[in-house]
Amino acid sequence: MKKIKIEKKILSENQRCSIENKSFLAERNKLCLNMISSPGSGKTTILVRTITELQGRIKIGVIEGDVQTDIDAERIRATEAPVVQINTEGACHLSAVQIKKALKKLPVDDLDLILIENVGNLVCPSAFELGEAGKVVVLSVAEGDDKPAKYPAIFAKSKALLINKTDLLGHVDFDIERAKTDARRLNKTIEIFPVSAKTGQGMADWYDWLTKTLKRTNSQQ
Amino acid sequence: MKKIKIEKKILSENQRCSIENKSFLAERNKLCLNMISSPGSGKTTILVRTITELQGRIKIGVIEGDVQTDIDAERIRATEAPVVQINTEGACHLSAVQIKKALKKLPVDDLDLILIENVGNLVCPSAFELGEAGKVVVLSVAEGDDKPAKYPAIFAKSKALLINKTDLLGHVDFDIERAKTDARRLNKTIEIFPVSAKTGQGMADWYDWLTKTLKRTNSQQ
Repeated sequence: MKKIKIEKKILSENQRCSIENKSFLAERNKLCLNMISSPGSGKTTILVRTITELQGRIKIGVIEGDVQTDIDAERIRATEAPVVQINTEGACHLSAVQIKKALKKLPVDDLDLILIENVGNLVCPSAFELGEAGKVVVLSVAEGDDKPAKYPAIFAKSKALLINKTDLLGHVDFDIERAKTDARRLNKTIEIFPVSAKTGQGMADWYDWLTKTLKRTNSQQ
Repeated sequence: MKKIKIEKKILSENQRCSIENKSFLAERNKLCLNMISSPGSGKTTILVRTITELQGRIKIGVIEGDVQTDIDAERIRATEAPVVQINTEGACHLSAVQIKKALKKLPVDDLDLILIENVGNLVCPSAFELGEAGKVVVLSVAEGDDKPAKYPAIFAKSKALLINKTDLLGHVDFDIERAKTDARRLNKTIEIFPVSAKTGQGMADWYDWLTKTLKRTNSQQ
């Protein structure tokens, strides 16, 4: 029983701070998405291509979450987009408190969209709200089509699923229809985008969704 | 300060049970390895091939850890090796208490080697001892060569690293020497095996290491 009480307390502290972040972003009319996946699914490559190809149309800032190193933040910095690195020093997910601090370091007023790249982990980050408007889960085809069934929480909670590395489809055993069906069984409204962030294939549909979601955010203000 | 105290208490409960498991296995002269990786690195495929190709030489039992489903246990069951499925129902790692219960369900006395397939997660499982003699980390080349640097804890703690899916090396950007160098910077004695569990390439070296490690276990008794 004691364990359950402690867990509730930590979650509610995170919850309180995530509500503050949500209000902060809503007052400023900024869309914020929390990107979650296994390590190596290609989140950073997706971010780099998205920032580069939407340059001049959508102003994007990034919060990079990593256990260690600023390898990913360096890749984002090369696009000239503003980026804040958070090193969790061993922790398995980002917290709303970390995002609150990071938002103070970003030029939020100059941005349209804030993309959070969470720690590479398909389990823990799904349980921690950061103040985002929605979660985006990324699954690489190299990881296998059974992942929505095996790690259901994040697929159930996400607004969009990017099935990345479709350029490898001829070389791995991945039934894209099985992954889609399993994801939709968990989440009827999830938007699914098969993409290759390496070649650019399919990315236009993801950009259209981002643009529409941004417009919806603006019209709600 | 309070948070630190709580964490210590939970870890020490797990620690106590992991020591019990270690004694249980040592008394019976059984080698137990804890396999850890991101989701979709190919742990189950490695297990299936290892069990099949070592049939008649090493008797292997498996403890399968998954957040949900028994998809992996079913694949192991097809090899006719004894397998116990643990569903963590959302938890991000296996615990020593779960392993203690699973060991009671396995025909331990009839086995030489017990392989634990932990939940797919490169972060959390590294912090929880289960009573194993050693950890084995699996990294798929599709995940990228920067993973030892970005997720150092598990590479620092493992006895062996399997770099899997080498059949994809022509199709992904993965510098095998960078991954090896970074892993050895964290862990001078780590044994590294580039393998393709799909094609079988490189698996013989892994089997040799397993055989030697088993012999060492037996001679220590």
